[in-house]
Amino acid sequence: MGKDIIKPSILAGFMELIPSDQILFNNMLDTIRKNYEKFGFLPIDTPVIEKAEILLAKGGGETEKQIYRFQKGDTDLALRFDLTVPLARYVAQHYSELTFPFRRYHIGKVYRGEKAQRGRFREFYQCDIDIIGNGSLDIKNDAEIPGVIYSTFKDLDFGEFTIKINNRKVLNGFFQSLGIENPVDVLRSIDKLEKIGKMAVMEELESIGLDSTVIDKIFHFINIKGSNKEIIANLKKLDIENELFKKGLEELEAVNHYVGIFGVPESNFVIDLTISRGLDYYTGTVYETFLNDYPQIGSICSGGRYDDLAGYYTKQKLPGVGISIGLTRLFYQLKEANLIKSQDQSLSKVLVIPMEDCLDKAIETAAKLRENDINTQVYLEEAKIGKKFSFADKLDIPYVVVIGPEEVNNNTYSLRNMKTGEQVVVPLEELLNIINKNSK
Amino acid sequence: MGKDIIKPSILAGFMELIPSDQILFNNMLDTIRKNYEKFGFLPIDTPVIEKAEILLAKGGGETEKQIYRFQKGDTDLALRFDLTVPLARYVAQHYSELTFPFRRYHIGKVYRGEKAQRGRFREFYQCDIDIIGNGSLDIKNDAEIPGVIYSTFKDLDFGEFTIKINNRKVLNGFFQSLGIENPVDVLRSIDKLEKIGKMAVMEELESIGLDSTVIDKIFHFINIKGSNKEIIANLKKLDIENELFKKGLEELEAVNHYVGIFGVPESNFVIDLTISRGLDYYTGTVYETFLNDYPQIGSICSGGRYDDLAGYYTKQKLPGVGISIGLTRLFYQLKEANLIKSQDQSLSKVLVIPMEDCLDKAIETAAKLRENDINTQVYLEEAKIGKKFSFADKLDIPYVVVIGPEEVNNNTYSLRNMKTGEQVVVPLEELLNIINKNSK
Repeated sequence: MGKDIIKPSILAGFMELIPSDQILFNNMLDTIRKNYEKFGFLPIDTPVIEKAEILLAKGGGETEKQIYRFQKGDTDLALRFDLTVPLARYVAQHYSELTFPFRRYHIGKVYRGEKAQRGRFREFYQCDIDIIGNGSLDIKNDAEIPGVIYSTFKDLDFGEFTIKINNRKVLNGFFQSLGIENPVDVLRSIDKLEKIGKMAVMEELESIGLDSTVIDKIFHFINIKGSNKEIIANLKKLDIENELFKKGLEELEAVNHYVGIFGVPESNFVIDLTISRGLDYYTGTVYETFLNDYPQIGSICSGGRYDDLAGYYTKQKLPGVGISIGLTRLFYQLKEANLIKSQDQSLSKVLVIPMEDCLDKAIETAAKLRENDINTQVYLEEAKIGKKFSFADKLDIPYVVVIGPEEVNNNTYSLRNMKTGEQVVVPLEELLNIINKNSK
Repeated sequence: MGKDIIKPSILAGFMELIPSDQILFNNMLDTIRKNYEKFGFLPIDTPVIEKAEILLAKGGGETEKQIYRFQKGDTDLALRFDLTVPLARYVAQHYSELTFPFRRYHIGKVYRGEKAQRGRFREFYQCDIDIIGNGSLDIKNDAEIPGVIYSTFKDLDFGEFTIKINNRKVLNGFFQSLGIENPVDVLRSIDKLEKIGKMAVMEELESIGLDSTVIDKIFHFINIKGSNKEIIANLKKLDIENELFKKGLEELEAVNHYVGIFGVPESNFVIDLTISRGLDYYTGTVYETFLNDYPQIGSICSGGRYDDLAGYYTKQKLPGVGISIGLTRLFYQLKEANLIKSQDQSLSKVLVIPMEDCLDKAIETAAKLRENDINTQVYLEEAKIGKKFSFADKLDIPYVVVIGPEEVNNNTYSLRNMKTGEQVVVPLEELLNIINKNSK
């Protein structure tokens, strides 16, 4: 054709997988979805493109810099950068059509044009659940969320994990009692404790203008350790006369009580007073989740309680609680850490290979297997038998059924187990039995 | 907070569903995916944003006008407008990592900024399969595609449907034999036959410059009707000495032979010589699919065979065959035609309602049900019993389990079937039996 060829490539910061990895990724998505549905969350799906004024109603900060925003005709458009702002807009817009408490899950791609770097993505999947109350929402919902996290990550099977919780009212009330009205800078410093060490954090707190008595009290506070019950007892012993603190402590105690009843073992659930989830969005319980053997991956599932979901779009007060799993980054990091089990990379259970002139019977065999819910493909190209077997091998298809003249005459099927090499000649019923037995 | 409220809304031309509809939509997506996997198609997922030069390699026409294209920093970006161009780029880019014939499915959103009108969408799901050969691809693959269409639409259960096929070589060869080298205008006119009638099409063909003998021959050709075998026999009788025509006829005959073996009943599969799938992309078999009782919806699943998938990105010759279901538009039209069955709008099977002080047992009950793979939620808010039942009602949850002091003491469960109103008090095992028996 004489035309130029353009080198095929995708943009930096976007993840694209080969099919065997895509199957593993989709397995994770399916597992997350199944668990979200198990707890009664309803699906929604919002447009990837929205009006810029809607997505940027809150505005400011990193969001505004990172957002993909553009004009089409006269319209100012943007790509969603999370699933929370679309949820707020959705609940406000469809308020009268929804039943509250509204439990929704949303699994979809979001876009952030941030600086490309290893392990950071500009397009990534978020898997969110939120429970939205109409006017109020019981604290027991905050205790159910770790139940969902536990169920999900147990199924995902990446190894031992710990759900850490804290309460922003406890933190803010404590800081208020020290005369710190806007604790954002303090929280940011504390967040860095693991990374930069105690001395550096103390210096930062000094530079904010805190005196050493206050700094001591802060360190005393975040050093409260022990079992969840001990931490709660120690917080009570602080005897802090601050309404916000007291309310937070009450919430923390309630959540801790109910989490166990929701089926989360004590070993998977700890109160950690250094968890704050930055910024000003959360107003109560906050969650982070860590893989015990891979803390360097950071939190793999985070979220919290907020007082007012959709204040930019409605006068209704809509408190909620939710979490998010950033699956694209998580998948990348699990792959890097060799934590993804790679069995079941094939969706097809059977490749049917026709010998010469036996194609009709081969196609009929495939149809019969599919009728029995066995994913099956037929090798349809002209090729040597070795190439046909190597096709099954490359795609990790566990069974090959060979149909030759003998099989046609005797109405039998030659079945080869591609892992063991074992080969048997059997009638249809036994064929189905063997494949079904070994593919659960 | 005193801030202004922005009226929540989405852009024109975007579909957003309430959860009960989203469940139905997702059921369709799941059914399509299950069928694609049953035939051995592998999943891929490509970025929604790509380099504009990649997506517009072919360029020209409607595509260029409709595409969402924008700058971010120095980069010229665009949103994908179909899943075929990304497939071509993907196969060229990952060529050495793929096993051919490469069967892939791709279910994802695509974007076209076309004029907003009823039933047309700017963001919509496409559900595509393609089989890509390396250098060559056997014609039998063209016969398997209707097998996938049949299996999928049988499962989707929208009523009787017909897969219509034709072959572009038959059409082009026939037109060549009439001296028409570029039949695009002729094909476009014939495409309008149903809409504007025979007289108007004849006038159009005259205005293109065809003489009446040629026009007569064209009408004789497209009027060839009968069973598939009769049509093939009649095409042979035309005795057209054109290599392309002969090759196409051979392909059509082969496809017709194997389609039956792939399990498609004769009543669901007809050769229709007026099907052409416009334009220049397809080079062999073409497919369209219609609901027998709703022809006005138009084709619900279309596609065909092409010689060269990725010529813009690689020198490898990659012939293929595939189809696409435009699910967003289809869902919209089926809803309009009241063709979507609305049973199973709830994903949750059970709502557990705690009476006063019985919350712990209620939460434990929910955990037990979930362990048995029963999607369950607990009503956690303080409310009157009537409001709790009405919650189940509004969400179409089929069962309510009430846990009161009596149930706690006797270790029993009050189960109400929300459809029949029937209520029983049973031990756990029977509870599980009843729910499992009725939720298959």
